[in-house]
Amino acid sequence: MTIPNKNYANLKDSYLFYNISQKVKAYSAAHPDKRLYRLGIGDVSLPLPEVVIKALHEAVDEQANKDTFHGYMPECGAPFLRKTIATHYATHGVSINEDEVFVSSGASDELGDILDLFDKSNTALIMEPAYPAYVDANIMAGRIIIHLPSGIENGFLPEPPQNAKADIIYICSPNNPTGAVFDRKKLQKWVDFANENGSVIIFDAAYEAFIEDVVIPRSIFEIKGAKTCAIEICSLSKTAGFTGTRLGYTVIPKTLVRQNMNFNDMWVRNRTTKTNGVSYIIQKGAAAVFTPEGQKQIRDNISIYKNNAKMIMDALDKAGVWYTGGKNSPYVWMKVPDRFDSWGFFDYLLNETGIIGTPGAGFGGCGEGFFRFSAFGTPEDTKEAAKIMKELLIDLEVAHK
Amino acid sequence: MTIPNKNYANLKDSYLFYNISQKVKAYSAAHPDKRLYRLGIGDVSLPLPEVVIKALHEAVDEQANKDTFHGYMPECGAPFLRKTIATHYATHGVSINEDEVFVSSGASDELGDILDLFDKSNTALIMEPAYPAYVDANIMAGRIIIHLPSGIENGFLPEPPQNAKADIIYICSPNNPTGAVFDRKKLQKWVDFANENGSVIIFDAAYEAFIEDVVIPRSIFEIKGAKTCAIEICSLSKTAGFTGTRLGYTVIPKTLVRQNMNFNDMWVRNRTTKTNGVSYIIQKGAAAVFTPEGQKQIRDNISIYKNNAKMIMDALDKAGVWYTGGKNSPYVWMKVPDRFDSWGFFDYLLNETGIIGTPGAGFGGCGEGFFRFSAFGTPEDTKEAAKIMKELLIDLEVAHK
Repeated sequence: MTIPNKNYANLKDSYLFYNISQKVKAYSAAHPDKRLYRLGIGDVSLPLPEVVIKALHEAVDEQANKDTFHGYMPECGAPFLRKTIATHYATHGVSINEDEVFVSSGASDELGDILDLFDKSNTALIMEPAYPAYVDANIMAGRIIIHLPSGIENGFLPEPPQNAKADIIYICSPNNPTGAVFDRKKLQKWVDFANENGSVIIFDAAYEAFIEDVVIPRSIFEIKGAKTCAIEICSLSKTAGFTGTRLGYTVIPKTLVRQNMNFNDMWVRNRTTKTNGVSYIIQKGAAAVFTPEGQKQIRDNISIYKNNAKMIMDALDKAGVWYTGGKNSPYVWMKVPDRFDSWGFFDYLLNETGIIGTPGAGFGGCGEGFFRFSAFGTPEDTKEAAKIMKELLIDLEVAHK
Repeated sequence: MTIPNKNYANLKDSYLFYNISQKVKAYSAAHPDKRLYRLGIGDVSLPLPEVVIKALHEAVDEQANKDTFHGYMPECGAPFLRKTIATHYATHGVSINEDEVFVSSGASDELGDILDLFDKSNTALIMEPAYPAYVDANIMAGRIIIHLPSGIENGFLPEPPQNAKADIIYICSPNNPTGAVFDRKKLQKWVDFANENGSVIIFDAAYEAFIEDVVIPRSIFEIKGAKTCAIEICSLSKTAGFTGTRLGYTVIPKTLVRQNMNFNDMWVRNRTTKTNGVSYIIQKGAAAVFTPEGQKQIRDNISIYKNNAKMIMDALDKAGVWYTGGKNSPYVWMKVPDRFDSWGFFDYLLNETGIIGTPGAGFGGCGEGFFRFSAFGTPEDTKEAAKIMKELLIDLEVAHK
């Protein structure tokens, strides 16, 4: 008799984005002429850079001809791409070998798959608020989750807890949803904590391309000691508009060892068993991102998104509202006016203005009372929405006094 | 203290294809002028069909323009592709709904991922010889494996064992490596066994496109009762040359329930947590395979491979050697001449003729004494290799008498 994985019964249904879409649908039906400003979802709006499009076309053409056709790819990634990514790390002062780089179908895929390397008895320490998949993937595996709260008092950048049995530690910086970023000193504390306790950090660097301050590390491997305690999971989704094209990469240092088992070796074994690699076409497109021309083109796109973030920040600054993020991050995380909870503010904002954001309560308990804006909308929508929001928030403040 | 997944320590290293490549390298170095005939690997040699190439180019162009750009795809597959695949099943007389179809990055990826739905305490029944990943993925999860031997006596098509506690049952038909195919009657026995015992069959249909006999089922869902006991995992790798382009699909009926847990619902939950879907570009290319023109073009390619298989079979028939497969399958599985074991025959064949096959011992204990030829080589190589092999095998037989 087959026994299903009963841990699935412990999952809470996630209705966050479903509820948002139902509410937006109802609003649109009631107000068919009203303009909507979509600052909710974390998806990109700009197309792929030209240099990527060119590389994708060339790769498709190679697949049309038997002399240039590519069959099965190496399971851990095409050597040309692993090498390119290792070289890219070197330009940021991080020295890794190409066999420490693994090409993936995306960070979200890898964040789930990588957990296969860990025993079920490990606890997972997750800073709240958090990307919901961190929690759910560990519930599916039957792990105990330690929720580490964060808030205004620590700028949503919590310190390692005293005496916590934290085996797997999730760190997302720049953070989704809060936009908060760990500086070197704060991240060093976590690396030291992990090394002292024998923990492993899963470092989600999906938003690293938005970092501009030189004091903020773009990779955890800029931090001393990280190569004995961290796995870094990265993605081209937000860096180069690959959300629907799919490609990510993971760095597992050869020096990450626990109980005599080497995580790099284990991941090679996992990949050679459980995948036949990532599409040749997409890997060629990804390699183009790391060319000088590719880097220039993604910088152009990112500065459009960063300018969106700036418009949102300016509006909140003028309205005197507390927020994190926006500067080294595509997300702005604001405190909602006192009279609302986060869903209440969502409803009010939508119905009064047509602006769509994401209620903080959707990212775990600590998210209540906060609200996420994404900088991935169009500049036109964002500019108009920022203007409307500034006025609305000032009016709310005046009315409150 | 992080505890790694210690089941990895129970994996045997798989040196099959590595050993083959080392031996071929040594042979080439010693005989730089000798021609090699590559009938070993299961990779395709023909390029993607024209209709797929066209669809891929169009999809790349859509990603270049903000009005047609596609971001995040639905996690379970693009609706257009799920619908197309469900319709394709209907043309074979199998009625499934589009929400029973899940798009994947490939069968090998899915065969590993799908195990997340099962409790660790389940046993896995694996027919030997087998694709090595079936065994390894279950060892990684700590499951007990029941090896079910097969051989000449049952045509490598074993029947359900009496009194075996088989919770997860792997069936690959047409089989890799043996090329043997289950007919309806034989497959019905397995479906009945699974329903009686509450087992779940994982049906690997990666080679279904090679079936030509109408008495052979192309899908397990042609068998009565399969919708309450089976998951079918399929792929475009061999069907349409997608080995390096990557796309597969999985069918999980809504009626597959164990202990009140619905596997379709669970897989939706898994996908929405652990992936952001498959590349839009590749999904568009895949949809083109199912158009009338696409079906014609893949048939043309498959008949080239099938003709390769026929050339190998003819050679073995003329030499009077026992084999399975070749007819509804791209693999021919021959009994090696008595004086050799399978690696011994590999060495002899390579050194005498430059022909590369795959030793059966690489597919588990029951594979010893057998040898796999693949029909995915070029027609030129295969024709010449078949001729050489026929003569060699006849000479060996004569020498033996």
